[in-house]
Amino acid sequence: MGNDPAVRVSIMKVIRDKTVTAEDVLASEEPMEIQLVYGETESMTRKIISVTMRTPGNDEELGAGFLFTEGILNNSDQISEIKSEGNYLRVKLKKNEIPVLQKSDRNFYTTSSCGVCGKSGIEAIGTVSVFKNLKDNISINSDLLFCLTDKLKDHQTIFESTGGLHASALFDNEGNFLMLREDVGRHNALDKIIGSAFLNGVLPMNDKILLLSGRASFELIQKSVMAGIKIVAAVGAPSSLAVEMAKDSGITLIGFLKYERFNIYSGSQRINTI
Amino acid sequence: MGNDPAVRVSIMKVIRDKTVTAEDVLASEEPMEIQLVYGETESMTRKIISVTMRTPGNDEELGAGFLFTEGILNNSDQISEIKSEGNYLRVKLKKNEIPVLQKSDRNFYTTSSCGVCGKSGIEAIGTVSVFKNLKDNISINSDLLFCLTDKLKDHQTIFESTGGLHASALFDNEGNFLMLREDVGRHNALDKIIGSAFLNGVLPMNDKILLLSGRASFELIQKSVMAGIKIVAAVGAPSSLAVEMAKDSGITLIGFLKYERFNIYSGSQRINTI
Repeated sequence: MGNDPAVRVSIMKVIRDKTVTAEDVLASEEPMEIQLVYGETESMTRKIISVTMRTPGNDEELGAGFLFTEGILNNSDQISEIKSEGNYLRVKLKKNEIPVLQKSDRNFYTTSSCGVCGKSGIEAIGTVSVFKNLKDNISINSDLLFCLTDKLKDHQTIFESTGGLHASALFDNEGNFLMLREDVGRHNALDKIIGSAFLNGVLPMNDKILLLSGRASFELIQKSVMAGIKIVAAVGAPSSLAVEMAKDSGITLIGFLKYERFNIYSGSQRINTI
Repeated sequence: MGNDPAVRVSIMKVIRDKTVTAEDVLASEEPMEIQLVYGETESMTRKIISVTMRTPGNDEELGAGFLFTEGILNNSDQISEIKSEGNYLRVKLKKNEIPVLQKSDRNFYTTSSCGVCGKSGIEAIGTVSVFKNLKDNISINSDLLFCLTDKLKDHQTIFESTGGLHASALFDNEGNFLMLREDVGRHNALDKIIGSAFLNGVLPMNDKILLLSGRASFELIQKSVMAGIKIVAAVGAPSSLAVEMAKDSGITLIGFLKYERFNIYSGSQRINTI
């Protein structure tokens, strides 16, 4: 195991009746353990928050984004040190800063009172954003969206060589490219984007456009809500719960984004058709 | 929320300078809570094992497959009752049957002694198969593989309408279609396949071919190992750790499977090129 985002392997290529040995480039997938250290200086608690399978690179962003979107941390000022070493990431909090750990547990285990059935389920399985009732006046022209997938492809450097990565990209409200992150896990790519904004103190991102290279799941919309993102566009299909969550949270959700066409699933008031 | 695998919603379709209202079909995504009930009849323990986001349908298979591939149960004879009700699945064990719960915890939390770094990490993050040192003499011709993606498409009924689902399909060693399961989560689609085999007592599946509609991650290869599957073919790219795990476990791993071409990443001895 190394820490490169892509690795080379020897393979056999079969094409009709020909078999040749060849070299292939694979997207790296490795576990990363996120440790949280907090409490009084004399008696620090060290807690392992999660082990996530990820593509190495931007590990600090990934860890910070995970801790923020899970509701465990709400401000980067809580952090005194964040240190990545191989497949371990240690996030140390300032004295007296207490992480909200019940929320993270809820993603793995939950009680029947959370209401897995019924409309209330979304609230129960979701995390609560620090950016409640966030106002925005972002509105964009449809032809701006038409151009985004080409810009995405231009920046998907690891996908280009491996075909094995999801990407999340951020654009401003004029369609200018700001940032792209890639990962074998689609939730990780988004956590890296949000973690970068969290660490740089530029949340909420209610004046940005988020582009997802694949499908839009509930989890990705939930993370967008946490970051205050108001426009999410996906190259692939959204799920039923992603659309429900987007409607409930006032997010504009675009699906099947292609050159010259897309579907609007919620929040059409932010899209000016030409 | 309902329990249909797909739902209809009203959307706006934007095509160049035209905007029309339309109806779209979305893949359903909903949480399912897996509850395990076990112990003495007088003092049964009820434990919530996980809440997974899934596409409704074949919920008993999904729950059974999850419990088996996580190493929590090892034999369907341990189960006295399995009952699906909306978004809850209750699996009741026979008296004196004890689930192995440390293993399931390991997927969420782990200690630094597990060795996230280093070669030993794979064993530590993996579960241990009940089918150790499983022999097989399966070998197939490459033209059999060429035909599998067409057969997959024929059976992806929900994907056909939604574009939003992953699929796992099972074939015998002559390429005959046996079973397909779809889900918003790629791990769930495979858990449904394995859960079906587990409940029907037909594990290990060392004489079958598993076909994955997308990419091959570590987690999917790990589940295949648990089920004793020896040939895994993916339409998409494998990750580095998927290839490593396949090599370590003696699995034949095919990637980028298309009509008339594919890549062999490990276990080429089982593929006879024509």
